[in-house]
Parts: sequence; C-alpha cells; structure tokens
Amino acid sequence: MQTCLLLDLYELTMAQSYLIYKRNAFATFDLFVRGLPENRTYLVACGLEDALNYIKGLRFSREDLEYLKRQKIFSADFLNYLMRFRFKGDIWAIPEGTIFFANEPIIRVTASIIEAQIIESFLLNTINLQTMIASKASRVVQAAKARGVYDFSLRRTHGASAGIKVPRASFLAGFSGTSCVLAGKLYKIPITGTMAHSYVMSFKHELDSFLAYSNTFPARTILLVDTYDTKKGIENAIRIGLYLKAIKYRLRGIRLDSGDIAVLSKLARRQLDRAGLDYVKIFASGNLDEFRIKELLAKGAQVDNFGVGTNMGTSVDAPSLDVIYKISEVSNENGDFLPTMKLSKGKVNYPGRKQVFRIQDKRGRFTKDILGLEKEKIKGKPLLIKVVEEGRVIYRLPSLEKIRISVKNNLSKFPEAMREIYSRYEYPVIISPQLKKLRRTLASQLEKRQ
Amino acid sequence: MQTCLLLDLYELTMAQSYLIYKRNAFATFDLFVRGLPENRTYLVACGLEDALNYIKGLRFSREDLEYLKRQKIFSADFLNYLMRFRFKGDIWAIPEGTIFFANEPIIRVTASIIEAQIIESFLLNTINLQTMIASKASRVVQAAKARGVYDFSLRRTHGASAGIKVPRASFLAGFSGTSCVLAGKLYKIPITGTMAHSYVMSFKHELDSFLAYSNTFPARTILLVDTYDTKKGIENAIRIGLYLKAIKYRLRGIRLDSGDIAVLSKLARRQLDRAGLDYVKIFASGNLDEFRIKELLAKGAQVDNFGVGTNMGTSVDAPSLDVIYKISEVSNENGDFLPTMKLSKGKVNYPGRKQVFRIQDKRGRFTKDILGLEKEKIKGKPLLIKVVEEGRVIYRLPSLEKIRISVKNNLSKFPEAMREIYSRYEYPVIISPQLKKLRRTLASQLEKRQ
Repeated sequence: MQTCLLLDLYELTMAQSYLIYKRNAFATFDLFVRGLPENRTYLVACGLEDALNYIKGLRFSREDLEYLKRQKIFSADFLNYLMRFRFKGDIWAIPEGTIFFANEPIIRVTASIIEAQIIESFLLNTINLQTMIASKASRVVQAAKARGVYDFSLRRTHGASAGIKVPRASFLAGFSGTSCVLAGKLYKIPITGTMAHSYVMSFKHELDSFLAYSNTFPARTILLVDTYDTKKGIENAIRIGLYLKAIKYRLRGIRLDSGDIAVLSKLARRQLDRAGLDYVKIFASGNLDEFRIKELLAKGAQVDNFGVGTNMGTSVDAPSLDVIYKISEVSNENGDFLPTMKLSKGKVNYPGRKQVFRIQDKRGRFTKDILGLEKEKIKGKPLLIKVVEEGRVIYRLPSLEKIRISVKNNLSKFPEAMREIYSRYEYPVIISPQLKKLRRTLASQLEKRQ
Repeated sequence: MQTCLLLDLYELTMAQSYLIYKRNAFATFDLFVRGLPENRTYLVACGLEDALNYIKGLRFSREDLEYLKRQKIFSADFLNYLMRFRFKGDIWAIPEGTIFFANEPIIRVTASIIEAQIIESFLLNTINLQTMIASKASRVVQAAKARGVYDFSLRRTHGASAGIKVPRASFLAGFSGTSCVLAGKLYKIPITGTMAHSYVMSFKHELDSFLAYSNTFPARTILLVDTYDTKKGIENAIRIGLYLKAIKYRLRGIRLDSGDIAVLSKLARRQLDRAGLDYVKIFASGNLDEFRIKELLAKGAQVDNFGVGTNMGTSVDAPSLDVIYKISEVSNENGDFLPTMKLSKGKVNYPGRKQVFRIQDKRGRFTKDILGLEKEKIKGKPLLIKVVEEGRVIYRLPSLEKIRISVKNNLSKFPEAMREIYSRYEYPVIISPQLKKLRRTLASQLEKRQ
C-alpha cells in the first residue's frame, strides 16, 4: 500500500502553518510508550525496519497532491513544498528486538519541524502494532518454556498489514513459525499448518480423511483429532501412525483444538507411546495465550507445540500501547535548540535531547536503565543509535533471524522475576539528576511564561 | 498489497489433498459469528466490498508459485492447478450495513471444495476486522446521540490496512469523518483535524501558536486548549475567536483533550457564549468510547463533537469477533449435497444450506429473525442475497454514503433496548423447526457413523 497519505490531516495543516511561521525551525521528537499496559513488565522493540522503509520511500505523488488540492485547504506554496518533499533529518532508534520500558524513547527524530511532524502518524501506527505484538508474543514464548509456539492468528488479525506484521513480530519474539504463507514469503519465516475440521467433515468417516491426508503428505501429516469424538480421533490417528510407520514414514503429530487439553494430551501421549509412536508430537490450539499455556503446563499437559492465534495476534488484553510522539526541543531564531515540554494534567513528558543508558553489573546482568540527556556522561550502554543521517538510512538492518536470537540473549540478562507471566516486577528506570533538574526548571519557566 | 498468499498454509495443503481425493466435490461454507462479545447486542455487517474485490482479483503469480515450489510441499499437478486458479463458485451475502446476530451466516459460499477452502483465511480476516469496527463504532454513534463523532484512531489501529478500513467501517456505522487522509482519498470520507500539542509547544507562547494557526486557516481553526493550563487556553482561544470575528471569520472550535471534560466543557461553553462566540463548537478527545461519552453527556458535558481514537479503532473491549467459516454441506459422488456438521464439544454448528429470515410487524419494526433452510417457505425478508454467480460478481456495490444511511434506518426498526449502551437485550433469533430437526437427526447419524 502506498503510505505517504497514511497520516492524520492535522500533520498537513500544521505543516502548512509551519511553512509560513516556522520555515527554518528544527525540532526533536521522542516516540515512547507512556506507561506499560497491565500484564506487561517489559516491551520488545519492533517495527523499525518498516519505519525506515517508509522514511526512504516518502514521496507525495501527483495524484495525492491533486486529492489534497481538491480539499481546498492547502495553499499552492504548500502543495509545491509537498511535491518536493523528502525527509532530510536525523533519526536515532533502539534496534529491533531490544527490551525497553515506559518513558524510554525508542525513536528520536531531529529534523525540520515540518518533516518531523509529517512522519508522526505512520511511525506511531507501525511501532504501536509491531511492538505490542512482539511484547505479547514474548510472554507466550516465556510461558511455553522450550516448547514450540506457532502463530495461527491470520484470521483474526486486524486486516492484511497486521496479517503479515504479526507473524514477523511474533517470530522476532521467539515464535517458531507462522501459518501465514505471505508472511513466510516476505520475511522468510517457516510456514506451518495442520488441517481444518472442514477437511475431516468433507469425508464420510474421520479415518478416511486421515488416510487421504497422510497419503498426500506422508512426511508431514498432523491430524486434527477433535472433530467428532477426541478419544476416537486419537485412536484413528494411531492407526494412521502405524500405517505410515509400516510404509517407512513418521506421523508428525496430532492436534487437539477443544475439550480439556491437559487431560486429553496426557491420554494421547500415553496411547501414542504405548503404540510405539513416541515420536509423534502433540499440538494444542484453541484460545491459547500465555496464561492458558502456563495453566496447561502446570497441569502437566503433554503438549509439544502450541498454535497461538487470536489472543496473541490482537494482543487481546492490551490491544494498543500508550505510544506517543512528543516534541522535546525546538530551535529558536538563532538555530539553538531549546528544550520544551507539555504541562497537561497527568501527561507531562521529559524535555531535551535524551538517551537511554543501560547499566550492567560485573556478570553482565542488566540492573537498571538511566534516562538522561544525550550529552551526559553516564557509564552504561546507550540504547539509541543513529539510524538515519540527513535523510539517508545509515543503519544496516540485521536479519530477522539475528534479531530473534538477540531477543533471547537480551532477555536472559534481565532478572527472572521480570520474565514471569504473573509478575509485578518493575525494572528500575532512573531519571538522571540533570534531566530531573531540567524538567523542574522548565516547568516553572513555562508556567510563568504562559 | 497482493493478497492471494494471504492465507493459512493448511488451505493449500488441504487443497492439494482435495485435488487428489475430492477433485469434483462441491461444498457450502457459512461465515458467521459464533457468539456476540460482551457489551454487544448486535453486529453491523461490514467488509463485503473488500471480500468481493479479493475474489475478483484472486490469481497466483509466477513468483508466488515459485515460492510455493521452494517449500517442497506441493506437487507439480497442484501448482499447475493454482496457476490456472479462478474462483468460479457462488456467494450469497448479507449486504454491508445490515444488522445481524450470532449464528446467522453473513457470507455463504457454494463452490468446488478447493475454491471454497482457499478463500477462507482472507474472508475471515477482512470480515472480522471491518464488522468488529463497524459494530463498535455504531455503539459510539448511539452514545453520542445526534452529536458528531470523528475517527482519530490512525495512530493506534493495527497497521496500514486497519488504518484505512477502520475509517471506512466507522463512517459506514455513522461517524461523520476521519483524520486519516488516505481513507478520505480512497473512500471519499470527509477528513478532519485540529492541531497537536507539539504545534502549540513549538511557539514560545500558546497565544502565538493560536494566532499563527488561525492566520493560516482563518475559516477552519480548531484550537487545542489544554497544552499548559486549560482555563488559560480557553481564554486565549476566546481572544482568537474575537480576533477572527473582527476580521469576519468564525473560529470553528476548541478541543479539550485532558482533564475533567464535563466541567471544562461547561466552563468553556459559558465563557464562549458570554464573549459572543456561541457558534464556536467544543470538541472533546482523549480515551473516548461509548461508555465515556455516555457518562460525559449524563454529566451535562457541553460537547458538540467527539474525536474517538484507540478504543474504537482497536475495538478495545472485544478486539476480535468469534467469526468462523464452517462447512455445512458437501456433495457426494452423485453430485448431491449432503448436510454436515461438527460435533466438537461446545462448538456445534448448523448443517445445510441456510437463509436468515427477518420478520417485521405491521408497523415495519423488526421482531425476530428465523434461521432456517434456504428452501423453507418462511414469511420474512431473506437477508442473504446472491452476490457472486459462477465466479462473477453480480452484485452492484452501493455507495458508502448509501450504506451509511441504510444502517441508520435499519437500526431504528429494532427495539430501543437493543441500542442502549448498557443493555442485556437479546434479539430473538429462532432456529426453524426443520433446521432443528435436521441438526438432531444428523448429529445422531454422525455419532453412529464415526
């Protein structure tokens, strides 16, 4: 989809006004999450690749400009400006896969105020979706311990874009694959699947359907056993397993999609093992999420792989993040950047050009983050790195597989309490004394000034 | 986005198996919602236009086929089949904007079982999103009574597709416009907007920013008054209002985005009126939804227009519908269609080729629906109409504006209790005696057979 008009109208009206009143002004904007949703102790940064691709390709077509002209809102001068529009600013970002917390800028844009404003809507939209999903998916991965988790959410994700971004974000967070073929093609994610109830139902007998499928795919059959009676379904699957064994194939698995998964999976495991089919994996699906998976495993469910759909793919318990894009400094007539902030009730933010410093102990474990000013000398790893310089993407995007591994490594350095499913742990994010002071001074200045 | 691979892998593996074992089988599938989510007493059908466009354009490209080939799952025979793939079946659907309820098919597909299966994932994805949003948005419209409601959700919708489908679905449901420019362009929806806090903050004084904006857009200025101190913001807006009045323009409005909207809006209304600016509208935004709007109006909030974002654009209290696609009949060797159904616990469905009949009383009010078999003679308006015949779209899509009006008319014929925000009303959907009987007979047949 062509995305340059995927923005809120006010980005353009403000831009037209800036062109008159702030033609040479520069500003810095922070994109950050104001507070973590319930049930989240950390977030996984995701969406930067799309954000950078968007920045690179940002052009207003003739057709777009004609549409805008027809609105009778915009001046010829401004439409001319848009015709030549290119993003020429600097962007700093924390790499995809990085764990982060509330109030930490994950993208920091310094550019002409017009350019910085125009990219707002798209950045928020794409970072919100992908970070929200990666963060939810990461919890599912934690809950499943070392078991495989597969994304089955395509039918309930919010439209076609989410249909491909959710598999990417969940794979990044540690999922093993997706059912979505297009995501597999676009992002080189392993694709996977079993069979639908309709397949079973289109044959007269369940066993006929199992036989047909395993004859079609003798090396990759996973049989769905709950269409009519799960216990009989398991028995039928065992017959097929033995048949495949006789012709030198291995039944790959069975899938349970309803009923008491803990009880049924134990029964299935016992019966499969007894029949000499201990290599046949058990897949579970049906309204799964980190809470259900934790519960199932606590009950001793014998599940090897989980198919996770709707609850992950919509981040059902928090279907958005409080992700915002706030101006933190603006240049004056002399070109000097002056810090700024909002004073609205309950919505204050941190002024100035900031950096996030991650502090490690001697054993390499993360102990706290410090949100400070960029120029501060703080011992700790700065999380924000420069990814766009004067409009040019200078950051070499890592492969998805590489990011995926880094998430795992990264997470292991945080306290275990943070990774638990039911956790009230709060990772310490300290505001540096200099930033605190700036905020205090500026707040009283602003109060006086207005 | 090219969408033919936007499907679950199992649609293709099943298709390959069908090609061997069910080459000539036809089937009927129903797309329906299994149960209404909490806080929903009705749903608004939305998404058919996209579904039909998808059906029309469904082709597997050479590149797609090469990707599939590389997976080493598919036979040459099947890939050949896909190369020539066209949807050639029949589709019945209830028109967009129709109010419907749980268990009522909104799309009914009768086609070669392969074709019917391949379109499953996309249909579910697009109908789920759009119907979910239209249904949520309709509640917001009800809550706002006759006031204007505008979609401001772009930054939190799930990706680019949702970014444009949410404005369409909410406009269809009665919203007055959207902030999303691309949706405005694609669907001819009025676009609207105010200004951001960053705009105000980029000037030294709030009043400077108000002045600059109103000089840029003297005929369409809506001032955001809560960046520093809302009361002072209202005073500054009044100054601008008087300034504009002096130069023969009308300040269009002010926007409240934080704080106690009920109190602040009353204050603003009083002060605006006192200053002779009674025509200046008050906009409210910030975490609004049907519940908040109802509460605000109950408190006497003086709000003319609501900007509604995240909660509507993600359908936050129900970010998915339990929308499913179930086989209801399949042809045998002789080409006769035989009804079928699933017996999984808690997940049974209704077999056979069905129709939804909507019953009206003498005054034109809807009193109940009857879910029956298509061939049944039931007095009532059949909701499913034929939209695709042998692969050709024969349905002339109504304009969005026309659908929007029909939703309003349609809704007014349902009991008022159904349209209340906190409602436990259940519209009666009766299963016809013939359908009940078929289901009973078939269930016992299937139990015996397996």
